[in-house]
Amino acid sequence: MKIVLLSGGSGKRLWPLSNEARSKQFLKMLINEAGEMESMVQRVWRQLEHTGLAEHAVIATGKSQVEMIRGQLDASAQIIVEPERRDTFPAIALLATYLYSIVGISLNEVVAVLPVDPYVEEDFFDAIKNLEGTLQASGADMALIGVRPTYPSEKYGYIVPDADESLSGTLYQKVNHFREKPNEQDATVLIEQDALWNCGVFAFKLDYLINLLIEKGYPIQYEAMLKQYDKLPKISFDYEVVEKAEHIIVTPYAGYWKDLGTWNTLTEEMSVSLIGNGMICEHSTNTHVVNELDMLVTVIGVSNIVVAASPDGILVADKASSPKLKEMLTHVNQRPMYGERRWGSYRVMDYKRSVDGGQEVLTQLVQVKAGQSLSYHLHLNRSECWTIVSGSGEFVFNNQFLTVKAGDVVQIPPGTMHSIRANSNMEWIEIQLGEKLDQEDIVRLFVDWAEIEEHCKLKR
Amino acid sequence: MKIVLLSGGSGKRLWPLSNEARSKQFLKMLINEAGEMESMVQRVWRQLEHTGLAEHAVIATGKSQVEMIRGQLDASAQIIVEPERRDTFPAIALLATYLYSIVGISLNEVVAVLPVDPYVEEDFFDAIKNLEGTLQASGADMALIGVRPTYPSEKYGYIVPDADESLSGTLYQKVNHFREKPNEQDATVLIEQDALWNCGVFAFKLDYLINLLIEKGYPIQYEAMLKQYDKLPKISFDYEVVEKAEHIIVTPYAGYWKDLGTWNTLTEEMSVSLIGNGMICEHSTNTHVVNELDMLVTVIGVSNIVVAASPDGILVADKASSPKLKEMLTHVNQRPMYGERRWGSYRVMDYKRSVDGGQEVLTQLVQVKAGQSLSYHLHLNRSECWTIVSGSGEFVFNNQFLTVKAGDVVQIPPGTMHSIRANSNMEWIEIQLGEKLDQEDIVRLFVDWAEIEEHCKLKR
Repeated sequence: MKIVLLSGGSGKRLWPLSNEARSKQFLKMLINEAGEMESMVQRVWRQLEHTGLAEHAVIATGKSQVEMIRGQLDASAQIIVEPERRDTFPAIALLATYLYSIVGISLNEVVAVLPVDPYVEEDFFDAIKNLEGTLQASGADMALIGVRPTYPSEKYGYIVPDADESLSGTLYQKVNHFREKPNEQDATVLIEQDALWNCGVFAFKLDYLINLLIEKGYPIQYEAMLKQYDKLPKISFDYEVVEKAEHIIVTPYAGYWKDLGTWNTLTEEMSVSLIGNGMICEHSTNTHVVNELDMLVTVIGVSNIVVAASPDGILVADKASSPKLKEMLTHVNQRPMYGERRWGSYRVMDYKRSVDGGQEVLTQLVQVKAGQSLSYHLHLNRSECWTIVSGSGEFVFNNQFLTVKAGDVVQIPPGTMHSIRANSNMEWIEIQLGEKLDQEDIVRLFVDWAEIEEHCKLKR
Repeated sequence: MKIVLLSGGSGKRLWPLSNEARSKQFLKMLINEAGEMESMVQRVWRQLEHTGLAEHAVIATGKSQVEMIRGQLDASAQIIVEPERRDTFPAIALLATYLYSIVGISLNEVVAVLPVDPYVEEDFFDAIKNLEGTLQASGADMALIGVRPTYPSEKYGYIVPDADESLSGTLYQKVNHFREKPNEQDATVLIEQDALWNCGVFAFKLDYLINLLIEKGYPIQYEAMLKQYDKLPKISFDYEVVEKAEHIIVTPYAGYWKDLGTWNTLTEEMSVSLIGNGMICEHSTNTHVVNELDMLVTVIGVSNIVVAASPDGILVADKASSPKLKEMLTHVNQRPMYGERRWGSYRVMDYKRSVDGGQEVLTQLVQVKAGQSLSYHLHLNRSECWTIVSGSGEFVFNNQFLTVKAGDVVQIPPGTMHSIRANSNMEWIEIQLGEKLDQEDIVRLFVDWAEIEEHCKLKR
């Protein structure tokens, strides 16, 4: 059995903590048994490890999340990078060709696909394990997990079983049809009909999907699929495959499950009401503060709200109204002010056009972990000035090596090649100056430190 | 007639916009007739100018506010600096000796004292002008202005007139006694007795106060008073003088008057609900946002609150509960993250100990207005690195002059003398590094640019 985890998300629902570079699944707002903060991705990965599934798992994601995943999970996690973000059907199709033509698993092997961030207990993963046997026993095309509803939610999709089958005594039911986001009244009727919430878990034998790709005229070789990826339709796996399948079964799961996709659902699972620098007065009940800024946040006499602050902005929202956030931010497009990378993280402290209008100025705090290094790169349209504020490292500048430490200042004009390797945990304040600052203005020459060293030795 | 304006205030009631360096009276949150933002100080000064009183006015304040006042008022505003902050009795005593021994006004001249920030219409200042005649006509020791109450407030002090005097037909009444912050029931009774709110305006002939100083054994010469200032009791003028005076009269003022000292009263006078970068959803009624940060503030579905954000912190408060703010911040002591100066302003972007614990790092944006210059100074315990991001100026470094412009970086080790004069509006990002950063770590050699130039020429 193979497990495919889908990691996507644009990140506006948990703004300002989530952004393009840091989707909701990477926010460290949960607390594990050891009392440490962990993200949804880290929680799921830990559960996969406990249930023995991690070694069979592959994560499918876009370029923008790779460094984040590498930073949060252990190095053994296998990642397949989508050439561009399309939707879940192309992502799963790509994965299938990878498993088929690169890993070379049997066409009879069962593949289970799930989102990277369900908030569940470990028995959920036992249920996923059981899908293999259920699929084989039933002879169905596809096996789903359906969550037993606890209230008539209007937010979820419902899986409606065949009316003539009873749940009692069986491990699975035949699926009759699907119903997306019904109103409360319809949801109540659906629940009476034993309908289940669709939690985005589906299992199939590899040959089912490979045959389907052949039928549709798509490549089944990974390299060919990569090249044609931009021609695949932007459509979800649910619409393109699941809802068109002839014989689908669903296994009910009655345990704890939650989609922590909005501030109201997320705060319900937070075991503390305050993360970061803040004060909440005693008369503010059911109020949560998540503050990633250094400054103090004070809440006085306001109940049932969430206050979230990050370098990207400040949110003050009534919990019940918080799902409206995405809609409110429709026209807000800003560059991410915080990001995690393979080597550490950056946090933008200030970004603006200078008063005389000629230049843009961006000031950020960069943190690099001991032993990590940046790529050897250059910028065409900006100069940088780094003031090292802690730690020390080997700085490379146009093929020359130089040890730098706290208090040193390095100036990097446009077009000069540079990199750094941190000897100890390093921090610097970086000021970027240019007519138009753009995150894409980077030419990477080498990524590995060994390569950089070798290149520079040759050039000297 | 002389007008004395008292400018004090610790600034916690309007946190995070107010701080030690920027009391509430300096916040630009009101809009004048020309549609420009103005502060309470600027509004009062404009009203004094319109009513012809500005030329007779002297402002008494502490060292920490002088640069702020110089930056907000025109250069002609006369300022007397208290050697240290004590209370209103020492401040007014100092002013009296200044008027007596330095300005040399007649002992018969009337002095009217008022806070620097009452929110009133211009007829309030006409009432102040009339105090001169009222005081002469009545022969009283002291003449006050009492505001006609509009509701039984528990927040104010009440001036209670003699019961046997009727208001009708007289311009003033004899004061019977004072009553501080009564409960609502008592306030209702007081209002029935024609009591008035004490708005902190009192007028007296100069000889009354000079005689009182002589009686109490305090100096009446300004220089001597300055030297003994630290021995004066920390007590308010109300307690030490007004409430002990024998013959006090009060003139009722029935016009508009308000103390904009807390967020709920201030927001009532704001003609816009949003200042700065923000979005307030349509379902948030009677909610105000004042945002001095560059980042977006979003409010969704929360009514009757104020959200205020500045480099000092973020406040989310129910308006009715906002007066509790000062109490909540009792134990919060932080250095001001924003300040205005004679030459421009600074805004701290980041302030923290570095991760390896050895050093403190402070990053701030400094703005200097065209033609303005810093003092020629040095720091003993910190280095500074300035990255110029806009404008150009003459930088002085150990008696050497150097023209700097956007993109240049200057490094200033501990102990080196430096200054700068801005040729055009300048901005730089300044990184301070030291074991313990302290705003007091500054040795000023010269303040005037002409002096600096002359000194450096001699030394070359």
